Amino acid sequence: MNNFTKKLFILTEQNETYQKLVESYNLPNLVITKEAREAHIVLAAPPLLAPKLNQFEKLVWVQSIYAGIDALIKDSLRQDYLLTNVKGIFGQQIAEYVLGLTIDHYRHFNLYREQQRQQQWLAHSYQTLSSKTMVIVGTGEIGSYLAQMAKAFGLITIGVNTRGIPKTNSPFDYIYHIDELASAIGKADIVVSTLPETPSTQGIFNQTNFSQASSILFFNVGRGSSIEQTALLAALDSGKVAQAFLDVFEQEPLPSEHPYWAHPNVTITPHIAAVSFPEQVVKIFADHYIEWEQGYSLHGCIDFSKGY
Amino acid sequence: MNNFTKKLFILTEQNETYQKLVESYNLPNLVITKEAREAHIVLAAPPLLAPKLNQFEKLVWVQSIYAGIDALIKDSLRQDYLLTNVKGIFGQQIAEYVLGLTIDHYRHFNLYREQQRQQQWLAHSYQTLSSKTMVIVGTGEIGSYLAQMAKAFGLITIGVNTRGIPKTNSPFDYIYHIDELASAIGKADIVVSTLPETPSTQGIFNQTNFSQASSILFFNVGRGSSIEQTALLAALDSGKVAQAFLDVFEQEPLPSEHPYWAHPNVTITPHIAAVSFPEQVVKIFADHYIEWEQGYSLHGCIDFSKGY
Repeated sequence: MNNFTKKLFILTEQNETYQKLVESYNLPNLVITKEAREAHIVLAAPPLLAPKLNQFEKLVWVQSIYAGIDALIKDSLRQDYLLTNVKGIFGQQIAEYVLGLTIDHYRHFNLYREQQRQQQWLAHSYQTLSSKTMVIVGTGEIGSYLAQMAKAFGLITIGVNTRGIPKTNSPFDYIYHIDELASAIGKADIVVSTLPETPSTQGIFNQTNFSQASSILFFNVGRGSSIEQTALLAALDSGKVAQAFLDVFEQEPLPSEHPYWAHPNVTITPHIAAVSFPEQVVKIFADHYIEWEQGYSLHGCIDFSKGY
Repeated sequence: MNNFTKKLFILTEQNETYQKLVESYNLPNLVITKEAREAHIVLAAPPLLAPKLNQFEKLVWVQSIYAGIDALIKDSLRQDYLLTNVKGIFGQQIAEYVLGLTIDHYRHFNLYREQQRQQQWLAHSYQTLSSKTMVIVGTGEIGSYLAQMAKAFGLITIGVNTRGIPKTNSPFDYIYHIDELASAIGKADIVVSTLPETPSTQGIFNQTNFSQASSILFFNVGRGSSIEQTALLAALDSGKVAQAFLDVFEQEPLPSEHPYWAHPNVTITPHIAAVSFPEQVVKIFADHYIEWEQGYSLHGCIDFSKGY
């Protein structure tokens, strides 16, 4: 980039917090603007930015404050700018969510909580996590981090991706190709979807893929659209899925009439498996900015054709 | 030992399971007896054995099926035999219990369960485990295993023991001497007691030691006697302890009139943080037996004077 002053527009649900944090970095040649049409850079929550995208006449770069940028990947939306998301800060939170709820389930913590209300002292038999198999669909940063933590707990980890091959130093014991998803699910005690929303992940958890499941715990911490809802409900009814832990939905908040709410084997959380802590997001933005401002190309840009 | 036939008496709550497992090992020169006075070896749950100890006239060795052997460490009981406990099989279970409930707490899983009943979509802010400090009192096998798993989750680990120094390759970031317990607790977000019952651990969690606490999570997975109950209740009332997770009690089952049951900041579980899986216990017994039968001395014998 040339050495001119870049103008940053902030479009989040915590603009003040983000502004203070950005200012604390004293980034060179950067000012914050409240005028959309003057901004070169936008630091934004994708769902807030999508409807306003055309207001940004001088747009060069959007730094998403989320990992998920699917709100910006629509054919109807312009794609004439650089798009980066935040990475490397969600693995810990996702691992806590998945492993915490998994332990919660196998160790009957909720049952003991109910028993305590009735002053009931009654032990239930259980199994430990060690030697159970976790299938993690999506082997990107989040899936890989989760796999590493799962291995620390003695779980066997199977990764599923579009290449069918592991990276070097992979935390996965085995890697399956996405076309072998049903077969991977057949080996699973626990299945975790970390998939982003793309055309190829749409409805991938369907009847065919659930058909091989046997009393699994199923987690969705990716995007709601990857589940075929009738297939999941049928798999719950037949016991192929013992419990579904759902953090993401096609429509959020989940509509009040939705059958998931009252299903005894569905655990609903309001999209909290991983959130963007502003301190971490702004650190990533600042690192990106400094490189970019010095004339290097932005690394980790989203490929609009792939959607990740 | 000489090459005579040794007789084994089994005294557990699952005698049939244990007998089948022992038989499956075909241990040399070993028969199972139903006559206490003929038995050389007893495989036993300590609380069941304690009142019957004098019936075993030929007793040479007791293999406890528990880690905790305090029921056999009383001045009024004979101590003229070798006593071994089971080790190395509880770390995983204790780590699942402590880390599972810790995540459960910080990530508001129970609150989301309540909200689901009311079809309420409402996110709550939270902190991750990373960079929190866990103080683990007792740095034996269980405490060390827990520390290792806690470190995998990004926790800072402080061990407290009677030496004040770490072992080689210690999974603890810092080690405090037991005389510095209050000061260690002052650094803690989470405190876990893995202490056995001995004269020196009696009431060690007292007013003085809780006085330095600041809104901690307190776990007791050791023995009930290490807590001074009035001090814990006072620390809960003043907020020094935010939540107590208690799995062990001086009297078990916990009496129904006990104030812990209805306390909103006490979580009670019925001594299930770690249980003895018979398969694992018998494997340990068989390994011990084979060494001993070949004339080697039993390793890991309990020192009656120390109580561990």
